[in-house]
Amino acid sequence: MNIALDVMGGDYAPHEIIAGAVLGARSYGVTVTLVGKPDVIQAELAKHNTRGLDLRIEPASQVIEMDEKPAKAVRSKKDSSMVVACKLVKSGQAQAFVTAGNTGGALAAGLFHIGRMKGIQRPALITPFPTRRGFCLLLDVGANADVRPEQLQQFAVMGSAYSRRVLGVRNPVVRILSNGEEAGKGNNLVLEATALLERTPGINFQGNVEGKQIVDGRTDVVVTDGFTGNVLIKTAEGVGKLIKQILVEEITATPISSLGGLLARSAIRRLSKRLDDSEYGGAVLLGLANLVVVAHGSSNANAIRHAIRVAKQGVENRLIDEIQAGIQEATQRPAEHPSIVTPPA
Amino acid sequence: MNIALDVMGGDYAPHEIIAGAVLGARSYGVTVTLVGKPDVIQAELAKHNTRGLDLRIEPASQVIEMDEKPAKAVRSKKDSSMVVACKLVKSGQAQAFVTAGNTGGALAAGLFHIGRMKGIQRPALITPFPTRRGFCLLLDVGANADVRPEQLQQFAVMGSAYSRRVLGVRNPVVRILSNGEEAGKGNNLVLEATALLERTPGINFQGNVEGKQIVDGRTDVVVTDGFTGNVLIKTAEGVGKLIKQILVEEITATPISSLGGLLARSAIRRLSKRLDDSEYGGAVLLGLANLVVVAHGSSNANAIRHAIRVAKQGVENRLIDEIQAGIQEATQRPAEHPSIVTPPA
Repeated sequence: MNIALDVMGGDYAPHEIIAGAVLGARSYGVTVTLVGKPDVIQAELAKHNTRGLDLRIEPASQVIEMDEKPAKAVRSKKDSSMVVACKLVKSGQAQAFVTAGNTGGALAAGLFHIGRMKGIQRPALITPFPTRRGFCLLLDVGANADVRPEQLQQFAVMGSAYSRRVLGVRNPVVRILSNGEEAGKGNNLVLEATALLERTPGINFQGNVEGKQIVDGRTDVVVTDGFTGNVLIKTAEGVGKLIKQILVEEITATPISSLGGLLARSAIRRLSKRLDDSEYGGAVLLGLANLVVVAHGSSNANAIRHAIRVAKQGVENRLIDEIQAGIQEATQRPAEHPSIVTPPA
Repeated sequence: MNIALDVMGGDYAPHEIIAGAVLGARSYGVTVTLVGKPDVIQAELAKHNTRGLDLRIEPASQVIEMDEKPAKAVRSKKDSSMVVACKLVKSGQAQAFVTAGNTGGALAAGLFHIGRMKGIQRPALITPFPTRRGFCLLLDVGANADVRPEQLQQFAVMGSAYSRRVLGVRNPVVRILSNGEEAGKGNNLVLEATALLERTPGINFQGNVEGKQIVDGRTDVVVTDGFTGNVLIKTAEGVGKLIKQILVEEITATPISSLGGLLARSAIRRLSKRLDDSEYGGAVLLGLANLVVVAHGSSNANAIRHAIRVAKQGVENRLIDEIQAGIQEATQRPAEHPSIVTPPA
């Protein structure tokens, strides 16, 4: 298996990305094609022991920066690492694309150069979200600011397939994010999507979930539009950061609590680790004809290693086929009602 | 000034509500009319020293429960404490209505029995949200699941007036919640509302804000639809609870960190206090012809006292007039462009 890795994208590119490629190739025995500027790649690779690893270099002279307009950048930078990597996937030379670069860029490059999966209206970005019991999956978290009910239905099918095939959840519980857990709560989009989800075959749809319930860990896949999902994950990030800042301020405010903080340091570190999703490999773009993994912009080598693992698992477990089959089932076999047979008179 | 207080609504009704009425009447020198079952009210009042306080009783035999359908409950329970309290306000006998009951019920009772402010399309629920520097204001957090751009514009005017008149902020910074801070980021609703907000006189509109930036405290008023706002506050609540649970689990996992937790206990208590919004008096329904304060369902006496303070400040500082003037200004003086005068030939 060959994974195309954009070594130019991410806050710590290229050194952490390339270090992650080395880790990933060694840990999972996959071929990793490093896409970017050859001289930069060679200089970084020289710092590592790469004996026995299948690491290839694919030249790309341009970089799509974090602040560029995605569609425009992808159109104008034909020799960017993202575009070149997607073309490797499209041509079958690689089976998945991994990047820690601009999410919008990855989406645009994926749409233009890999293409949508048959029957999919819109790809969605799926990401792990911390809960009491580990992590659940949340989609869409930013690929689509405005969606239609049928698109939310497709997100549910894709998220469910991802939960089964990559995380190994047997019968994932799918819920739709709403402003109340009771049936009937929601905006028009949620209400219309719910009517569709209730009669979608192949998914275990259980109704609404509220923001405060997601963390209880009783939902495997949370479906929402990309605007609300994006607000949700960023709010969680902001609140987490706020609590940490205030905790540090208050702990260091007196000598006694400072000592307490010192003694509880390992506990606080374990807390951070339990909320850290970097071992989950970052977000994945579902709905393209091949797998695209979008690691955090702040990915270090370990996060890239896990992103490579997710790509490998997705390919091995035929995630794309599973999604394709799910979409076909959902769209071709709608609402089967028991037929009412009138007995002969 | 007379404040109509629903003593039957809230998780700790009637005892904490009535204790809060006593505290509020003493702290702020206002008349409080206790609306509910007279025998219950008299029995509770007997537990307090009420000498010198102007506490009145207004009989109401019914209660709108937390799980009732709001509009239906308000229509059928004509002698409920919420409906009776709103009628006191409508008739001018009371100047504001305070409840810790069902938010939907308060909205329905307010709409039916107090009525909308002139020119207001939809009332909105405004609530404090914790930041690095204290609290900002967020609206709508649940009165309207689906809104139009002009309604978001009205929310901005109302929130700005509230920030000035009740919190004393001189020139409150207003931003719209979006999935990115850059101009041009947003769903269709946000983009259309932004175009309106940019040419709304009387508000200090500064563009987009992301969920993770709200907590930095550089925005005074965050405007959003009631669906997204509700998801946001509930997500924050869930994340806060999750972090607390995991922190306790990890601190109590070893004897050394347990000791650390013990020594840092006061710091953790101060953290909770800084995130606690009960001293902010709960949420307020803006856009009705009079002031309606909706305290937390879990309000204790102190939270009710602060809700009474908010009602008093709102009435004293003529919040309703300020909002009314702002709405008139925003709708009657749209987009003044410099006139292009063709010089005489």
